[in-house]
Amino acid sequence: MKITKDLYQGSLTLLTDFYQLTMAYAYWKSGKGEQEAVFNLFFRKHPFQGGFTLAAGLDFVIDYLENFKFKKEDLSYLGKMKVKDGSALFEQDFLDYLENLKFSCDIDAIEEGTVVFPNTPLIRVKGTLIQCQLLETPLLNIINFQTLIATKAARVNLAAKGEPVLEFGLRRAQGIDGALAASRASYIGGCSSTSNVMAGKLFDIPVSGTHAHSWIMSFETELEAFEAYADAFPDQCVFLVDTYDTTNGVRNAIKVGRILREKGKEMLGIRIDSGDLAYFSNKARKMLDEAGFPDAKIVASNDLDEHIISSLKTQDASIDVWGVGTKLVTAFDQPALGAVYKLSAIKTESGDWEPKIKLSQQSLKINIPGAHRVRRYFTKGKAIADMIYLEDQEINERGIVIIDPTDATRRKRIMPAFYQEEELLISIFKAGKKIYKSPDIKQIRTRAQSQLEAFDPSHKRLVNPHLYPVGLEENLHHLRMSLVLKAKNFENGENES
Amino acid sequence: MKITKDLYQGSLTLLTDFYQLTMAYAYWKSGKGEQEAVFNLFFRKHPFQGGFTLAAGLDFVIDYLENFKFKKEDLSYLGKMKVKDGSALFEQDFLDYLENLKFSCDIDAIEEGTVVFPNTPLIRVKGTLIQCQLLETPLLNIINFQTLIATKAARVNLAAKGEPVLEFGLRRAQGIDGALAASRASYIGGCSSTSNVMAGKLFDIPVSGTHAHSWIMSFETELEAFEAYADAFPDQCVFLVDTYDTTNGVRNAIKVGRILREKGKEMLGIRIDSGDLAYFSNKARKMLDEAGFPDAKIVASNDLDEHIISSLKTQDASIDVWGVGTKLVTAFDQPALGAVYKLSAIKTESGDWEPKIKLSQQSLKINIPGAHRVRRYFTKGKAIADMIYLEDQEINERGIVIIDPTDATRRKRIMPAFYQEEELLISIFKAGKKIYKSPDIKQIRTRAQSQLEAFDPSHKRLVNPHLYPVGLEENLHHLRMSLVLKAKNFENGENES
Repeated sequence: MKITKDLYQGSLTLLTDFYQLTMAYAYWKSGKGEQEAVFNLFFRKHPFQGGFTLAAGLDFVIDYLENFKFKKEDLSYLGKMKVKDGSALFEQDFLDYLENLKFSCDIDAIEEGTVVFPNTPLIRVKGTLIQCQLLETPLLNIINFQTLIATKAARVNLAAKGEPVLEFGLRRAQGIDGALAASRASYIGGCSSTSNVMAGKLFDIPVSGTHAHSWIMSFETELEAFEAYADAFPDQCVFLVDTYDTTNGVRNAIKVGRILREKGKEMLGIRIDSGDLAYFSNKARKMLDEAGFPDAKIVASNDLDEHIISSLKTQDASIDVWGVGTKLVTAFDQPALGAVYKLSAIKTESGDWEPKIKLSQQSLKINIPGAHRVRRYFTKGKAIADMIYLEDQEINERGIVIIDPTDATRRKRIMPAFYQEEELLISIFKAGKKIYKSPDIKQIRTRAQSQLEAFDPSHKRLVNPHLYPVGLEENLHHLRMSLVLKAKNFENGENES
Repeated sequence: MKITKDLYQGSLTLLTDFYQLTMAYAYWKSGKGEQEAVFNLFFRKHPFQGGFTLAAGLDFVIDYLENFKFKKEDLSYLGKMKVKDGSALFEQDFLDYLENLKFSCDIDAIEEGTVVFPNTPLIRVKGTLIQCQLLETPLLNIINFQTLIATKAARVNLAAKGEPVLEFGLRRAQGIDGALAASRASYIGGCSSTSNVMAGKLFDIPVSGTHAHSWIMSFETELEAFEAYADAFPDQCVFLVDTYDTTNGVRNAIKVGRILREKGKEMLGIRIDSGDLAYFSNKARKMLDEAGFPDAKIVASNDLDEHIISSLKTQDASIDVWGVGTKLVTAFDQPALGAVYKLSAIKTESGDWEPKIKLSQQSLKINIPGAHRVRRYFTKGKAIADMIYLEDQEINERGIVIIDPTDATRRKRIMPAFYQEEELLISIFKAGKKIYKSPDIKQIRTRAQSQLEAFDPSHKRLVNPHLYPVGLEENLHHLRMSLVLKAKNFENGENES
């Protein structure tokens, strides 16, 4: 899949915030443009008040980066921008600089389909200030949304307990790519298929769908409509039974099911799209069973999400397949993830890396300084803790302490020698060259499933989940604390000047 | 703007639900494919518990329709689909039919930037069943989202009471087009600019932006960072003051403001992006005024929406410009509009139009049968009621009654002769040929503003708005009631068979 080539016009380089360009210009003017920096993309809180997040979107990021290039028309657009006296906002030399700009950063990232936690860098960008800055907005846009939807899809699929979940959110999705990217992320998160034909073609996802109420209404009777559908698709009949009266709709489906059977075909099932799904699914199940169709599936839809599915399961609704749209593809109860992208280190003139801190009125918003790696520890195949550490830090294999970055009283002692470990941040680009082989979407989906299995059910609980331990290795914790204190002193010093 | 040509690869014809294609095939197989029908696109409830909705997205729909064409690769994708015995799902003759399919519908629509109400057709499609059906999903996708965001933007701008609102949601938007389309709709809804450079270029929207916290952090001190920024953009300085300590940040901004003034330049203002915006804006205002910068503007951002802006205004916060992102572009409190697209009439073999009804377990979901027009009545420039009526219905100019489609006890008597009127549904395509001249985006934005002015403030109240009267002309009301009753009898009849 090449989203830029197959869908967009080859380059999305202007898909960034204007302030990235003004900063790029000001870096360039001030001679800092080529200074190297490290930026981390991370989120601060799981979405949906959940206990886990499922990373997605990296393949779009890779495609975006491989096609990073200012086109002539982009530069001509920027060249026409004026300040109030009518002179050009950007000098021509800067536009020439952009025209020749080649993506040359190091990119490390956590693979798609990985279960991830707050404050962990999902993507780490090391490169010139100008390039790091220009990438901020598109990377956030792509990762924020696909990670959000993959996580929502995983939750919906957990609620369905292994029964198929069909995604059909296109009509209510937030724009064209809001739909396409959501279909992709939903499949990664565990959905079985999408209704979006273009997503099916672009991303190699199974598509599914049968007919709408309008199909029924275009015939004189529901029975005629079912018969005509069965003529066209004798092997694929799922009849929508609630256009006029659900009970009678099931009766008509059974009639046509019998006609199909005479021809050696079996109807696959029925769909209910309105009314009380628990009541009508149980009634329909009974009718289908008594009529000799115990294998006919019941598909349910109508504003479903993980909570309604769980509730229908507690009520023993006879639903076999779940059609989920709006609430999934818009992440209705929390439609944005809120990941951020923060400078964490900068290379000084002497060539040393200087870790950087941003203070805030809100402690939660203080970043983690330095260039990091992330390690996950396992015992007997179960994940027990994630550690964020400085990349040049040697890890004491006999015993380390990790400290929660938002609450220094939460600590966990780990004895690495007794555990298996996995490095989560993988090198994707080295000096602008891709060195990572992207898995296909089915491999990503499989990774997501096995990742989810590696976590205790308590972390995957849909409501009030148990907190999974993620901490800073102690040296990183101390570095952060000392920089915060220094920055506060430093500011006091400046106040007195 | 040509979203298909400038952004996507020329055609979005597969951007539809798979069931539209299976229905198209089954219509084709059953000989009903060329039968004509009328479908209406409408929503049932204002978003955000509001009292109005602002229509947007039509220009995308027009562009989509003008480029409606199955490409060879689309058909080859469909041709590879199999049923379980390995034979092709779609016959080759049907794929040939699709290859030769030319868009030939009549499209009537309410213009972008129009204030609209529940149950009113925003788009009416008249054409063959196959074409009407294929258009359902893309039209819903486009109109649902842009209308949702234009409405949200109008609400945010109403809260800001004429002060500029800058949209900068790209990083948290739902995908690439979720951002682009949101920037466009936000501008239509009244925002002054977008941060999204690509949206600026594609849609001719002003772009704005200055610098981020990372700019400050990349320098040794905040003061140096402000000075360097002022060197690059002496005419465009809005300093972000909250990287380390907001009060000290304002102090540094004032220092650089004085340096600028020595060079004959004025700083434009400061931006506060965290902490208590009421407290810090008032403190900053006082500092700026006392330092001789009474004209420096204060820009505020940080998870703003119409409710927080209203609250800050009640607290007399000293904020002049509002930066709004996530909550606007994702319509955070209600991220989907939920418009639907329903068959309302079908042409019988005898050439007559037969109005169609869909029942439902939920009365709210019963559609309005027939082919409609929509008329808005005004007195002294103020809108007083909207009437939905059958297109061949003669209107009694001396007195009519309109009846709320969801509550037949709500009725309003109108004497058309005393009022001005406007037909809201405009002809856009006639037999597939565009006959409408699209306004440019600035004209749409101006229309939105004058439309909003034509409604009483009580309808635009952000919380608990007064209900604007929208009703069915009485003959349409009677037609609908009689069809509902007939359909229920009809179903009873079938039950007895």
